[in-house]
Amino acid sequence: MSAHPRLSLNQATIKYASLPDALRVTADAGIGGIGLWREPVAELGLDESVRRVADSGLRVSSLCRGGFFTAEGEVRAAALDDNRRAIDETAALAAAGAAGSAAVLVLVAGGLPDGSRDLAGARDRVRDAIGALEAYARSAGVVLAVEPLHPMFAADRAVVSTLGQALDIAEQFDAASVGVVVDTYHVWWDPQLFAQVERAGRGDRIASYQVCDWITPLPADVLLGRGMMGDGHIDFGPVTRAVADAGYTGDIEVEIFNEQIWAAPASEVAERTARAFAAHVPAEPLAAVR
Amino acid sequence: MSAHPRLSLNQATIKYASLPDALRVTADAGIGGIGLWREPVAELGLDESVRRVADSGLRVSSLCRGGFFTAEGEVRAAALDDNRRAIDETAALAAAGAAGSAAVLVLVAGGLPDGSRDLAGARDRVRDAIGALEAYARSAGVVLAVEPLHPMFAADRAVVSTLGQALDIAEQFDAASVGVVVDTYHVWWDPQLFAQVERAGRGDRIASYQVCDWITPLPADVLLGRGMMGDGHIDFGPVTRAVADAGYTGDIEVEIFNEQIWAAPASEVAERTARAFAAHVPAEPLAAVR
Repeated sequence: MSAHPRLSLNQATIKYASLPDALRVTADAGIGGIGLWREPVAELGLDESVRRVADSGLRVSSLCRGGFFTAEGEVRAAALDDNRRAIDETAALAAAGAAGSAAVLVLVAGGLPDGSRDLAGARDRVRDAIGALEAYARSAGVVLAVEPLHPMFAADRAVVSTLGQALDIAEQFDAASVGVVVDTYHVWWDPQLFAQVERAGRGDRIASYQVCDWITPLPADVLLGRGMMGDGHIDFGPVTRAVADAGYTGDIEVEIFNEQIWAAPASEVAERTARAFAAHVPAEPLAAVR
Repeated sequence: MSAHPRLSLNQATIKYASLPDALRVTADAGIGGIGLWREPVAELGLDESVRRVADSGLRVSSLCRGGFFTAEGEVRAAALDDNRRAIDETAALAAAGAAGSAAVLVLVAGGLPDGSRDLAGARDRVRDAIGALEAYARSAGVVLAVEPLHPMFAADRAVVSTLGQALDIAEQFDAASVGVVVDTYHVWWDPQLFAQVERAGRGDRIASYQVCDWITPLPADVLLGRGMMGDGHIDFGPVTRAVADAGYTGDIEVEIFNEQIWAAPASEVAERTARAFAAHVPAEPLAAVR
């Protein structure tokens, strides 16, 4: 079995697999790339994870995740320290991956601190934190990728809510060290999506492109409402073409948080992901730029 | 008991009250305005509703709701007919209300038609439907108020997702007949909120201002996740000042869909609404423009 040459399976899609298992089922499904998460890497240890990744022959397309920049005081200082460790891990894992790996650390901004209603202040702190980390990331050769999350997460998870807002932050820094994530789930609804993807392309800011579907009705825990491509309402053609036209030539990750998908065997999910990608994400604009 | 002079209780906040009961508990709580819904009006009959509204001495601040413009064919034609009836009802009810009533029909765009992923096409049909209704609304003296709904409703309820997008539509028509709704619940997260409120003010486009809070965690049915002011994450000061600075001088509606609030006696909810409004919505910028 072989999947699209630019497909990468984000490890969150097979959440309950260990890193060794995740590497194996990804390769077995013919998928050439994997997006890693820090927790399973920590479980195995960084050094052993690096060895396993090198042995797998897979590309590393990103590490999830840094960020959570909106607190103040000691919590903030601890978050910055943790992000420096995440930058180091990103560099090590990407170096161990096959050719075409990307040293990209995905950043989730963080929500409003407990009891705070100061959305503008929280947003300012995100920008300032990236400013505090940018030189460290640059010296490590890592791109900090600001991920706008769907506005329904603005209070409790990420105060960066649109691609335009993520670009407003990223563009204050060098494109070699700060970019953005385009995740269809989070941005598909945005009337400015295509204009902002084009803007991101002009600035060479697209550090990661992720696909998964928006399904309805939303589940009781909306965090787990992400669907396999084809199961929901998103038309992956126009946005994929726009991302390709914007000059993005990296891997396309499939990242799905979904209880039913997590409950299935990881090998089945990897194979299903490859099939759904082939069926719903147009290959032609992707092939053209690779 | 007397409430803020510009407070209006949207009838959806006391969903299970009949129109006569809703009028009574609103007046008893010292609230001067009410936002009406078509279903309880239809239950009583339009003529009797008009008489009751006139007898109540209350202002009518809006009628909910028209719209649902995204279908095609016969369903679309039926929706346009139904919107013409809603325009007539809006005019009749506003004329029956006390001085300061507003002939404003709130429009919910509608979601993607079943099985469709054509978001752009659905959005075009919303604009076209408003074009088809605008002359009828103008001759009836009714303002069509395009309400952007939170992006989490883009698939299944409203393809108009931001204030900027609503203004892009409204500005294609005369401000006397097409405006927008600013509802804190739907727009509080928007990084462009203040710029777009200012833009709306410049064009005299704010037809309705509604307040309610964003609470977390979201309930299992996200449609019912609206909270009483003070129970959630929204800072009502900055947005209320912005709306006042934008020249809006009408009523401020409290519209809350929430099972717990619906389960409470309507009279208690009306009184609680007046208290929460006084505590969390700054009176000073409102008083200044009235």
